[in-house]
Amino acid sequence: MQIGMVGLGRMGSNMVQRLLQNGQDCVVYDSHADAARPLSGLGATACATLEDFVAALSLPRAIWLMVPAAVVDKVLGQLAPLLQEGDIVIDGGNSSYHDDIRRAAQLAPQGIHYLDVGTSGGVAGLDRGYCLMIGGEAGTFQRLEPVFAALAPGAGSVSATSGRKPTTADQGYLHCGPHGAGHFVKMVHNGIEYGIMAAYAEGLNILHKANIGKHERESDAETTPLRHPEHYQYDLDLPEITELWRRGSVIGSWLLDLTAGALQGNPALADYAGRVSDSGEGRWALAAAVDQGVPTPVLSAALFSRFESRGNADYANRVLSAMRHQFGGHVEKPEGGPLA
Amino acid sequence: MQIGMVGLGRMGSNMVQRLLQNGQDCVVYDSHADAARPLSGLGATACATLEDFVAALSLPRAIWLMVPAAVVDKVLGQLAPLLQEGDIVIDGGNSSYHDDIRRAAQLAPQGIHYLDVGTSGGVAGLDRGYCLMIGGEAGTFQRLEPVFAALAPGAGSVSATSGRKPTTADQGYLHCGPHGAGHFVKMVHNGIEYGIMAAYAEGLNILHKANIGKHERESDAETTPLRHPEHYQYDLDLPEITELWRRGSVIGSWLLDLTAGALQGNPALADYAGRVSDSGEGRWALAAAVDQGVPTPVLSAALFSRFESRGNADYANRVLSAMRHQFGGHVEKPEGGPLA
Amino acid sequence: MQIGMVGLGRMGSNMVQRLLQNGQDCVVYDSHADAARPLSGLGATACATLEDFVAALSLPRAIWLMVPAAVVDKVLGQLAPLLQEGDIVIDGGNSSYHDDIRRAAQLAPQGIHYLDVGTSGGVAGLDRGYCLMIGGEAGTFQRLEPVFAALAPGAGSVSATSGRKPTTADQGYLHCGPHGAGHFVKMVHNGIEYGIMAAYAEGLNILHKANIGKHERESDAETTPLRHPEHYQYDLDLPEITELWRRGSVIGSWLLDLTAGALQGNPALADYAGRVSDSGEGRWALAAAVDQGVPTPVLSAALFSRFESRGNADYANRVLSAMRHQFGGHVEKPEGGPLA
Amino acid sequence: MQIGMVGLGRMGSNMVQRLLQNGQDCVVYDSHADAARPLSGLGATACATLEDFVAALSLPRAIWLMVPAAVVDKVLGQLAPLLQEGDIVIDGGNSSYHDDIRRAAQLAPQGIHYLDVGTSGGVAGLDRGYCLMIGGEAGTFQRLEPVFAALAPGAGSVSATSGRKPTTADQGYLHCGPHGAGHFVKMVHNGIEYGIMAAYAEGLNILHKANIGKHERESDAETTPLRHPEHYQYDLDLPEITELWRRGSVIGSWLLDLTAGALQGNPALADYAGRVSDSGEGRWALAAAVDQGVPTPVLSAALFSRFESRGNADYANRVLSAMRHQFGGHVEKPEGGPLA
Repeated sequence: MQIGMVGLGRMGSNMVQRLLQNGQDCVVYDSHADAARPLSGLGATACATLEDFVAALSLPRAIWLMVPAAVVDKVLGQLAPLLQEGDIVIDGGNSSYHDDIRRAAQLAPQGIHYLDVGTSGGVAGLDRGYCLMIGGEAGTFQRLEPVFAALAPGAGSVSATSGRKPTTADQGYLHCGPHGAGHFVKMVHNGIEYGIMAAYAEGLNILHKANIGKHERESDAETTPLRHPEHYQYDLDLPEITELWRRGSVIGSWLLDLTAGALQGNPALADYAGRVSDSGEGRWALAAAVDQGVPTPVLSAALFSRFESRGNADYANRVLSAMRHQFGGHVEKPEGGPLA
Repeated sequence: MQIGMVGLGRMGSNMVQRLLQNGQDCVVYDSHADAARPLSGLGATACATLEDFVAALSLPRAIWLMVPAAVVDKVLGQLAPLLQEGDIVIDGGNSSYHDDIRRAAQLAPQGIHYLDVGTSGGVAGLDRGYCLMIGGEAGTFQRLEPVFAALAPGAGSVSATSGRKPTTADQGYLHCGPHGAGHFVKMVHNGIEYGIMAAYAEGLNILHKANIGKHERESDAETTPLRHPEHYQYDLDLPEITELWRRGSVIGSWLLDLTAGALQGNPALADYAGRVSDSGEGRWALAAAVDQGVPTPVLSAALFSRFESRGNADYANRVLSAMRHQFGGHVEKPEGGPLA
Repeated sequence: MQIGMVGLGRMGSNMVQRLLQNGQDCVVYDSHADAARPLSGLGATACATLEDFVAALSLPRAIWLMVPAAVVDKVLGQLAPLLQEGDIVIDGGNSSYHDDIRRAAQLAPQGIHYLDVGTSGGVAGLDRGYCLMIGGEAGTFQRLEPVFAALAPGAGSVSATSGRKPTTADQGYLHCGPHGAGHFVKMVHNGIEYGIMAAYAEGLNILHKANIGKHERESDAETTPLRHPEHYQYDLDLPEITELWRRGSVIGSWLLDLTAGALQGNPALADYAGRVSDSGEGRWALAAAVDQGVPTPVLSAALFSRFESRGNADYANRVLSAMRHQFGGHVEKPEGGPLA
Repeated sequence: MQIGMVGLGRMGSNMVQRLLQNGQDCVVYDSHADAARPLSGLGATACATLEDFVAALSLPRAIWLMVPAAVVDKVLGQLAPLLQEGDIVIDGGNSSYHDDIRRAAQLAPQGIHYLDVGTSGGVAGLDRGYCLMIGGEAGTFQRLEPVFAALAPGAGSVSATSGRKPTTADQGYLHCGPHGAGHFVKMVHNGIEYGIMAAYAEGLNILHKANIGKHERESDAETTPLRHPEHYQYDLDLPEITELWRRGSVIGSWLLDLTAGALQGNPALADYAGRVSDSGEGRWALAAAVDQGVPTPVLSAALFSRFESRGNADYANRVLSAMRHQFGGHVEKPEGGPLA
């Protein structure tokens, strides 16, 4: 079927390519005109203005937005006046589900249908397909199924869980519930993602420091002596270990596959400074858990580690140093001091 | 090659079966004589006493212990006097790597070689193979390679990470370093496992309570009102969602496959009380991180959740209630009160 | 000066008593007529209806609401139509500062002034005075200063920090900033309170279990053996230890004083079940930190411990047990099993 | 009574001064001869060598060690051969209680008695007195009571908890139990201290960033937009707020008094870099909790924040950035980017 795509960044342009490869008809637009050109060569209809884009779509239109969460409302503000009753707008980006509920209600009086689609898969999605978590009216979902099926991975090599009656979940897309349900599920998905990533990262850090007993440490009142240096004499090969874990272990996963890939030839990861961004969903997942009274110590610890990686604990740490100075006369040790 | 197995519980007996299937010669012993019988029917040589077992093995012997960590020293105490210079003892259970270092040193004067093998794979290992993390002398490791290769998954369907020069890691077993290195790596592996499991569990709990806004809540000074009940109106289908995530999403993993299996036909998981054991490695991983000065907020939160699930926070919680009573006159709400 | 009090629960009635003791003129109302009677005997003017209450106050009125956060909007809805330009409404309860910003804006067109006052002190406030964190217009704050001074502790025996120029903070009340600033500061105050309380509670739990090495533990694959029982042979006297810490230690505090009081004669705290409520501020503090990107691992851990104490992790724990059953065939141990 | 002091650093020399002020007879030694001179002028007997020091003490000797935990064994190794049956050695520093148990056993055959004394009070202890947590034989404790009473705060202005029968705890010193009990209690004390400090530090960080809505933030896929900038418009005066909380609030404490002192005239705490040391007890408290199966999410989070403040999460953070690069093509944002 025909689908219009607004936003041709990393995710949007890959998705258009996958749609084209799977026989869908794509009309595309990006505020940076250059972004559309390569897709045009692959068979998409590239439009120079939003007005042209809307005009190029047959009725009822199906328009997929793949833009940063912070600009969805701005784009919708430009787009909605150009649309007609029966048209469908899909937000496939990382919006808060609160915004989905609000936007669906705002568009309803115009007869415009709204779907929220949490999209997972990253840059590999072009080849592997995208996992799609979808919220909105069931009828609108059904109208778009050809598009979802084209984007999704399909059953592929993943065998169905025993005892199931097959559904679209087995193809990699699912109508999760009413407006916002798609982004709600995606929000939790990303919260889990942060937790899993942090679990690997912390564990690899322990392995990375397994030789700490080989280094001398100062012994003064500000430094804790290592009681058993003989327990920390291992020089571990992290690329080998992560490769090993990919086979037969309980912790095998796609994220582990990627980690093994990143460590291959680069065990110290020196190209990275370790300033880790977060794109919102982890925060919203935590806020939802707090509203619900659901304890999420792991998900929150993972999020806070990202905040800390960006220096956001600095003031708190200065408060601690100031307190220690006040009660114990402790003076901070300079950077470049002992390892642990 | 020939291998002797002591300990024929869930793990040990499965491993013997896999060894037999892959052409190895197995001599087996368990303090419960019944455990050996079925393996005898499959081609293993079953022995009634430890003495018979030792006598049945050709020199130099290779003996694999698959017994609870708490009884390894007891078994070694009975076994060592029966062994000869050049024999090899392998601890394939969940021992602390501290014990490996000590045991290797204790057996060395007798000329007995010791390997520590962290073994991951669970009950599925019989079919999928076991991921083996191995510590000890390189020469001893090499002598045992036929056994490791038989137990390990092999390359299977997991393609090697791009750019690698193949090693045994690609077959699912690895010599990680000197004595203790195998269980050190396994310890960290299990720490990661706890973190990943908790990430899924916390996320699914948020999904599970996504309809909390449909229920009325009391409003009194002891209960926080839900500010936006309209945001928690989703009845989500967790078996469908976990099945969905298995395809194309960033959080796909073997643990997710198993979770989807557990939820299939049983979304409320009512068969379980939620008292979650921990088998030691998670604790040791945390203790190592603390020695190293490595921050592990996610791994520790996952471990503490297990402690809490078994009621171990009860006294702390009573302290909190007592404090609240003292300063605010707050009286505890009875069980069965409001949901959040 | 004259002040009207709506809400005569534990906090409100104590505050009226303190105001009367300090020479203020109090008009009081509660939807439960019985609540006003004892205060009437102490010199307050008790009113049977909200209309009578409003009529009994001289212009411009100053009305202090001390009601559960969840009913403030309802009370304001009844009260506002009865008020006049220049009147002042003070919310002294545990409202979210978001609501303060909204309410101040809603009342402004009517010329009604609004102050938000975070009030700390608990049931001891009657004697010790209340610590008041105040948000709103500076002029409105100044008009109410006699009331704040009467409620606040005054300088008392707490000597001013060296180098300060005295302000109202030295008397125990402070204009923190515009609308919402009072409850914002109170929200963070309570977040800190949760953290401090949890720090004591966790520490006391360690002391409580210091004799765990005296008890035998099972050794099976589901139970971690205690490696050094000889390290856990202490029968510690918690009432004595908390009393000790009150003198000269770095961790002396009013919360510790209360804890020592609670433990006195009751070291096992058997009167409490350990179901710990939270009244909202801890949640809002965490939500604010997440908005700000401020890492708050301690404050969140403290909040989540309360959620867990009320059984809110049950589903997550069942997920963990189900996973363990799937991969390892692990069966849950029954309640009443080993201690740790 | 007479007491010998070894180690005249910040803590040791202050303690000698307090002992002299309270009429005790002090013989002192430090490996840096200069450290003893000022105490000599105050009435202490300063000795140039350890041999002189031992000779200057009357039998049975009482010797208090106030040296870094890492050198206690070295000092004991030099000291023990010079001592006689009936002498007493007191370790008043920050030793692990495991070491106390071992040392007491090592000294016992010589008839030397050993006490472990956890000492809290910091640099203020000279004036306020020291809170003393004592482990060892009851008889040895009793022989030293005059020294403990001189060091301890005494009842002072802290009124006893209602209902108590007075003990030495009311004077600020306590015999907690057998060998190691003193440092066990001190270890937990310091774990609590870390938790309380972190609670204040995190809360103050939230207040510090309360004006974050006044600053513009970028909106790109790597940065989470602030949904409600209007909620973060407060310029809060932290010196005033901490001073306020000292009066009548639930979170008043000595650590808060010190924090208010540190912020006075220095609200940005720009003199500190925020590299926070830890002196061992927090680690040991966490290790004990893990042995016991006691959940300590707050104490561990506080410890890990210190580790992170010293850059110990760097490798883990680089792992996260590498993963994000792999799956999403995400590139790290440079330092000096957006605030949150």
